[in-house]
Amino acid sequence: MHDKPPLGYHYLWDIHNCQEQTILKVDNVTMLLDEICTTYSLTVLKKSSNQFAPHGATAIYLLAESHLSIHTWPENNYVALDLFSCVPLKTVEELESLFRKHLGNGIKIKEQYIERR
Amino acid sequence: MHDKPPLGYHYLWDIHNCQEQTILKVDNVTMLLDEICTTYSLTVLKKSSNQFAPHGATAIYLLAESHLSIHTWPENNYVALDLFSCVPLKTVEELESLFRKHLGNGIKIKEQYIERR
Repeated sequence: MHDKPPLGYHYLWDIHNCQEQTILKVDNVTMLLDEICTTYSLTVLKKSSNQFAPHGATAIYLLAESHLSIHTWPENNYVALDLFSCVPLKTVEELESLFRKHLGNGIKIKEQYIERR
Repeated sequence: MHDKPPLGYHYLWDIHNCQEQTILKVDNVTMLLDEICTTYSLTVLKKSSNQFAPHGATAIYLLAESHLSIHTWPENNYVALDLFSCVPLKTVEELESLFRKHLGNGIKIKEQYIERR
């Protein structure tokens, strides 16, 4: 039992069956991050990204609320996405449709949520 | 049961009783990140950090291996540190002494480890 709210709300998504051609390119995954930030009114202070060779991408956004990160493994059709926020998401329902829009309609999403305190 | 190794090795540390004056300043916490990267031969590709007002700091390193992030709550003497790596740490024993050196000898460390797959 905790008598105080957590300091950080950490959402971890492991997403499978992503479209390989989409998650190959860092520009595609930053479009997903941008839309998450817009949808959830997250304030982006700094963006950092890298296109790996021969494949894979990383993008990390430093937020006023903490951070948002994505790493892709195109050869495994897999994406690891994390949101660490000092405020909880009111709803995660819109996220699934955002994920499907940007990563493919056939994705499988595993979500974990960890209270950081 | 999994027949394949994880794609990501994610270490989450919640550290309490940190020295407030130390974790106020982003330059102090980046020194910790720098030393972690040196000690564990992690390849830093991009550094991103922010000093919050009135207090608090965030630093995120984009690594060849994935990412390393830190967020501080000086008013709570609390730090949240994450290492997401595509290779496992051979040992985490040096980390405790690094944490004590940079955050104070009286810290309390809670570690979680999540296989990302």
